[in-house]
Amino acid sequence: MSEQQIIDQQSIEQRMTIGALQQAYRSGDLKVETFLTEKLQQAKLDDNNIWIETISESQLKKMLKQLSSKPIESLPLYGIPFAIKDNIDLSLLATTAGCEAYSYQPKQSAQVVQLLMEAGAIPLGKTNLDQFATGLVGVRSPWGAVKNSVNPEYISGGSSSGSAVAVAKGQVSFALGTDTAGSGRVPAALNNIVGLKATKGLLSCTGVVPACKSLDCVTLFANSVEELNQLLEISAQWDEKDCYSRPNSAVNGDEWYQPENRLSSLKIGVPKKGQLAFFGDSSAQKLFAKNVQCLKKAGAEVISIDFQPFLDAAKLLYEGPWVAERYAAIEEFFVKDPKQCLSVIETIVGGATDHSAVSTFKAMYRLQTFKVECDAILDELDCIVTPTVGTTYTIEQVEADPIQLNSNLGYYTNFMNLLDYAAIALPAGFLDSGLPFGITLFGKAFSDRLLLSAGAQLQQINDFPLGATGLPLMAQSAHENEIDIAVCG
Amino acid sequence: MSEQQIIDQQSIEQRMTIGALQQAYRSGDLKVETFLTEKLQQAKLDDNNIWIETISESQLKKMLKQLSSKPIESLPLYGIPFAIKDNIDLSLLATTAGCEAYSYQPKQSAQVVQLLMEAGAIPLGKTNLDQFATGLVGVRSPWGAVKNSVNPEYISGGSSSGSAVAVAKGQVSFALGTDTAGSGRVPAALNNIVGLKATKGLLSCTGVVPACKSLDCVTLFANSVEELNQLLEISAQWDEKDCYSRPNSAVNGDEWYQPENRLSSLKIGVPKKGQLAFFGDSSAQKLFAKNVQCLKKAGAEVISIDFQPFLDAAKLLYEGPWVAERYAAIEEFFVKDPKQCLSVIETIVGGATDHSAVSTFKAMYRLQTFKVECDAILDELDCIVTPTVGTTYTIEQVEADPIQLNSNLGYYTNFMNLLDYAAIALPAGFLDSGLPFGITLFGKAFSDRLLLSAGAQLQQINDFPLGATGLPLMAQSAHENEIDIAVCG
Repeated sequence: MSEQQIIDQQSIEQRMTIGALQQAYRSGDLKVETFLTEKLQQAKLDDNNIWIETISESQLKKMLKQLSSKPIESLPLYGIPFAIKDNIDLSLLATTAGCEAYSYQPKQSAQVVQLLMEAGAIPLGKTNLDQFATGLVGVRSPWGAVKNSVNPEYISGGSSSGSAVAVAKGQVSFALGTDTAGSGRVPAALNNIVGLKATKGLLSCTGVVPACKSLDCVTLFANSVEELNQLLEISAQWDEKDCYSRPNSAVNGDEWYQPENRLSSLKIGVPKKGQLAFFGDSSAQKLFAKNVQCLKKAGAEVISIDFQPFLDAAKLLYEGPWVAERYAAIEEFFVKDPKQCLSVIETIVGGATDHSAVSTFKAMYRLQTFKVECDAILDELDCIVTPTVGTTYTIEQVEADPIQLNSNLGYYTNFMNLLDYAAIALPAGFLDSGLPFGITLFGKAFSDRLLLSAGAQLQQINDFPLGATGLPLMAQSAHENEIDIAVCG
Repeated sequence: MSEQQIIDQQSIEQRMTIGALQQAYRSGDLKVETFLTEKLQQAKLDDNNIWIETISESQLKKMLKQLSSKPIESLPLYGIPFAIKDNIDLSLLATTAGCEAYSYQPKQSAQVVQLLMEAGAIPLGKTNLDQFATGLVGVRSPWGAVKNSVNPEYISGGSSSGSAVAVAKGQVSFALGTDTAGSGRVPAALNNIVGLKATKGLLSCTGVVPACKSLDCVTLFANSVEELNQLLEISAQWDEKDCYSRPNSAVNGDEWYQPENRLSSLKIGVPKKGQLAFFGDSSAQKLFAKNVQCLKKAGAEVISIDFQPFLDAAKLLYEGPWVAERYAAIEEFFVKDPKQCLSVIETIVGGATDHSAVSTFKAMYRLQTFKVECDAILDELDCIVTPTVGTTYTIEQVEADPIQLNSNLGYYTNFMNLLDYAAIALPAGFLDSGLPFGITLFGKAFSDRLLLSAGAQLQQINDFPLGATGLPLMAQSAHENEIDIAVCG
């Protein structure tokens, strides 16, 4: 092998995007078996507390053997390594939901996992999370706090912490998370990757440990928006076994993914002065303002909106009765011995019994009132932009103040599923501390393709390095000629 | 006045349909003031316990004066008398919801009442109901049991009892009721009139005392389906003040009211053998079978379906947490002194505190599971036909067994709003006892015009006498040439 060949090989291995790997497999530059064996080794050597369990080498071999019987071109995710949050079933490994005592061996994989594997993707293991997906911090786990991919003293965000960091560190190409109150968006933001919390019900929750069953979403993490779009197409299938599953809308199919110059036709709302919270982080504040400028520069009409009804709805999630869903999800386990949970989880879930049916219906009426107000605001817009989180914290800070700081992280995320909106979390630059900052675009249910289109254009414009790898965004083959590139100040 | 003229005049007065009255007003055969003054007198002399309060003569005069400034042709409901269930606000009178101690003087009329009055309709007063709309019997009222319009020893059905009987006895042309679990359909069936429980949210609930706020519907009673269609067009307007209000769907506008030969293109489900309940009433059973035959004769494809998931959903309503909505609706009043309610209402509403937030969410998951099953059944059909009630009872029988017999009456109605379906109650002949029997057609949300079209054709085919008046159905001007008439065995 020449020196040049070695560099190319390294470059391919570091470039984890689906498109780059496919190209390398198809051209023969990269062998699936060699590559995935290396990736699995890398995962096993990880020291960020990303993984709860990885697959065995023999399990990998078996999957590779099955894969080898199929032509590379026949499978859109042929040999693409991915990670699965450990509240989503993979038949090969136990599901713990972040709690050893709760752990069970699933008979089959979650519907979403099955669909991705049928498309050729290879799961490397199950990732660490805030126990029972209850938290936005990534430190509430007996497997240890998941360390931020950029600076290990900082939190990774949660609850889908391990999945996000696995992508950011280039251990997998994409990962599955879940998102009830922000768990799929906060860790995307804090690790400089993209996260899609699609419209509720588009991705099946069959085979997922519920957090709040009426609100839960399975989410996708990747390096590029282009990949999110491809993954959505593969994983969003109506599922008769999930009572909250919904078929996609006709105006939200793959053909509506049109990133070319998409921002110039959009009306984007932004919370008016005084309604944005950065919790004292002026660096984040400046970055957000810069991102809004960037949207304007790309031609979007940015309109100041009243964000209060969204914030009011957000408050309902933690103050209201929805915590009872978390209790209902694990009731049998919980009542036997609540002490098997982490203390902070025991406190939160145990609080569910304070809520009555009467207070539940009253909260639902209030929510419905807020929804009417929020919908009316969105009726005048295509989507809304906010920070994904207002600031970030060190692991030490969160351990010292676990409830309030967790709550701060949900300021822009808690309302989303209550109001039945779709959202995409996008990298948005780096804070003075060097840590990633992120923004979220959100819109009504079934606005996924619009958000993906806008997000893809923004990612091309910003051209930030990917995750924690420092590598540039690789132009994706499918749409590379369509994307309008402009440089933002 | 010649004898013939006197007969014509009587005939007009007895024919209370909107079309007949409009014609008589416009031709000058009938004077609005004379007619409405007589109608108000008739209402004041009523001995069926229909009314809780009627308007005063001076209130009528004032409304007539306002009306007289407008051309008859300009208002679709010019001078049409109607009745309002006394849980719906009319600014002229107090709202009692069937409980004197609860009574309040509304500042303005309910949105639906306003719309009807703006269209020229004249409210004659507020009608008796099962207290707080909690019941399907029409006997749970301090104002006395509302007597059946055909046989006063029998129940009228409830909770919109007074409104239905007012229409059936020809005291008003139409009436407003409400329907949470069957209150707008059961009394229609038991009094031989038509009742529309439109898609949830189409008629605003602003100005209505809630029963179960997330389920409540305002309903329409009339003599003919043609009139229901007209009234729906006038009264269904999205209302920003009602958080559960919904705009109509594009496929459910007035232009979709097409009764001509409508049945011949429909697939209609009917509960399979063993899932129909007539509570020992063989006469009702025979009538239902005859009605199904009639649908077939008119060309409908009638398909046997599994009715179990609908029945399972129905059970949830009374066994599940939704009673907490009734408590939430009157909590402040109720906690002060529950004894101000009728004993049966106190027992029912007081039971709400047994339900927790956890049990509420669990019930919602079960409901959602049933909804998936029921929707899948309806996906293969245009609508489903059932009896509206399986049998009927005397007032004495219900007073002796107030809970079980009430529950029997809800067998075919309780699931409707939980599952978000639209329904129309139609006269379907007379039992051996001479009492009316009714059937219901129901379909998915926004199937209202389809149900109205089918119902109108069926009413023309059956040509039963109207309400308790014995008068024949008067062919309605707007669509009379379009309706295909066939005689059923």
